[in-house]
Amino acid sequence: MILVVHAHPYPRRSRANRALVDAVREMPTVEVRSLYDLYPGFDIDTAAEQRALEEAKLVVLLHPLYWYTTPALLKHWFDVVLVKGWAFGDGGTALEGKDCLWAVTTGGDEQAFGAEGRHHLPLAAFAPVVEQTMRFCGMRWQEPFVVHGAHLIPDAEMQAAATRFRARLQELSV
Amino acid sequence: MILVVHAHPYPRRSRANRALVDAVREMPTVEVRSLYDLYPGFDIDTAAEQRALEEAKLVVLLHPLYWYTTPALLKHWFDVVLVKGWAFGDGGTALEGKDCLWAVTTGGDEQAFGAEGRHHLPLAAFAPVVEQTMRFCGMRWQEPFVVHGAHLIPDAEMQAAATRFRARLQELSV
Repeated sequence: MILVVHAHPYPRRSRANRALVDAVREMPTVEVRSLYDLYPGFDIDTAAEQRALEEAKLVVLLHPLYWYTTPALLKHWFDVVLVKGWAFGDGGTALEGKDCLWAVTTGGDEQAFGAEGRHHLPLAAFAPVVEQTMRFCGMRWQEPFVVHGAHLIPDAEMQAAATRFRARLQELSV
Repeated sequence: MILVVHAHPYPRRSRANRALVDAVREMPTVEVRSLYDLYPGFDIDTAAEQRALEEAKLVVLLHPLYWYTTPALLKHWFDVVLVKGWAFGDGGTALEGKDCLWAVTTGGDEQAFGAEGRHHLPLAAFAPVVEQTMRFCGMRWQEPFVVHGAHLIPDAEMQAAATRFRARLQELSV
């Protein structure tokens, strides 16, 4: 099973995230959980989320970059789902050995993430927060899937990215 | 004015954060806004938060490190308060030139944040998410105030840290 934990604050206004979700939603082994649809009031059902995670072999975190990291609801999901005694610490082995794929879209172009760009740093400089969270839970961190220019790239390029995303999930689930 | 934006998910169970807040709460120029007390349901009042920010010369972000960055409610505060047209983008100059101090406590000792430690990376590797958020809004990033070992250090050491925190705020507000 592949669990796609999807967090877009405005799912209806999403372009890149929607294309990526649509490309994998119908795969027989994929479950998509869209957090902002499930929990608009931030009242995450920890037990339900943990059950979904337990059944997954591959966990995909799919979201637009919001202030250089996950939107707040996905951060809240980290805070209340990945808890001691379940995800880490004594007896906390639920996620051990599962694969984790960070799938992140950014609004601007890649050049914005560079010494000369308006974000000053490469996207990789912002990765440790999410990466180390997952590694601390014993997950196997995979090379992130990144789509820059979510608001800029032509439809054909967006569709090509969606196809690559689907292929990546298939490859990681064998 | 100094605005302390405080975010501890369990304020009553806090030790280090409480000592730090208590050390500065009575300073005549300080306003403390404890987000988890104000907004337990994550229903942040954007206008009220923006008003408080507008009056501040120094903005202090005070919180325990939760999964290598801010607790979720402070991330939500970034997402809904630091918005385009106010904090950045066309006409978004509300925070321009204000000072920002990141005051962060960690549960474990400093050695945990190192190649040999269980977090593998120094705390500085996790800073860019918060730092670049504030810099993008035109704020002047100050050397962070860090207290490691919030659950470990003796009371006297904790009190000394609180005194240093108060002095730091005084120094930055001149």
